[in-house]
Amino acid sequence: MTNRWNKSDTLVDDTHYMKQALLEAQKAGERGEVPVGAVVVCKERIIARAHNLTETLTDVTAHAEMQAITAAAATLGGKYLNECTLYVTVEPCVMCAGAIAWAQMGRLVFGAEDEKRGYQRYAPQALHPKTIVIKGILAEESAALMKEFFAAKRR
Amino acid sequence: MTNRWNKSDTLVDDTHYMKQALLEAQKAGERGEVPVGAVVVCKERIIARAHNLTETLTDVTAHAEMQAITAAAATLGGKYLNECTLYVTVEPCVMCAGAIAWAQMGRLVFGAEDEKRGYQRYAPQALHPKTIVIKGILAEESAALMKEFFAAKRR
Repeated sequence: MTNRWNKSDTLVDDTHYMKQALLEAQKAGERGEVPVGAVVVCKERIIARAHNLTETLTDVTAHAEMQAITAAAATLGGKYLNECTLYVTVEPCVMCAGAIAWAQMGRLVFGAEDEKRGYQRYAPQALHPKTIVIKGILAEESAALMKEFFAAKRR
Repeated sequence: MTNRWNKSDTLVDDTHYMKQALLEAQKAGERGEVPVGAVVVCKERIIARAHNLTETLTDVTAHAEMQAITAAAATLGGKYLNECTLYVTVEPCVMCAGAIAWAQMGRLVFGAEDEKRGYQRYAPQALHPKTIVIKGILAEESAALMKEFFAAKRR
């Protein structure tokens, strides 16, 4: 059995799971929501899937990451997700970074950076110090979804 | 009819509504939750009340402010709370500050500062630039509830 956590295998896994997050982002876009998707993976199993629902729920807190964290904790029966990885198509905002910190997320993997609203600009130290951060997985695909969405809005 | 928004009257109102937030914080403490409470006021009416429920719901996102924002938006039927005031007994964390920003909250009034987890330390620019911030309303009472709670935990 290969060690799934050597560097190259992790990258393959990260791309695999990010594709699932992208599917969630597409679902958001199809219902008129800003297309951001997320999945939470624990021990190679997807335990939560979510996409942005702020318009549908009339709730600014209904970001993909927030829902994924809530759902993952419900599945595990515990608040802390230190053995989990959160995959999200776009860099989390300050709110979501705060939630990721409270959850003590083991790993955060995101696709496209968000220069305007991303946590790296406004709260670079918001995450838990033990959370491993991987950036840029399927970044182009994630960014393309966002660009298409906002271009269509302006038409 | 007096102008309820002159300086002294606002202070009276802020104390009045913060007392309601304190009642919520007490409810949290009584059920073993970190005692933080919040209310949202719109046009002199309380449209949402909430207290921290992270333990009860096994959900790190269930802070008083998050629930109050979600409930207030549901009551108003709109995501934006720019005509509302959020009263919360303790300085919001980074997550909640992010949510307050997305909601474009008109005013944020908080009691005790939170040097360890408060947004002012980690994300001082997290709030929407138009949000008016008032600090220190019933700060001692709010801080006392927190101190009692953690002292009892250590016993």
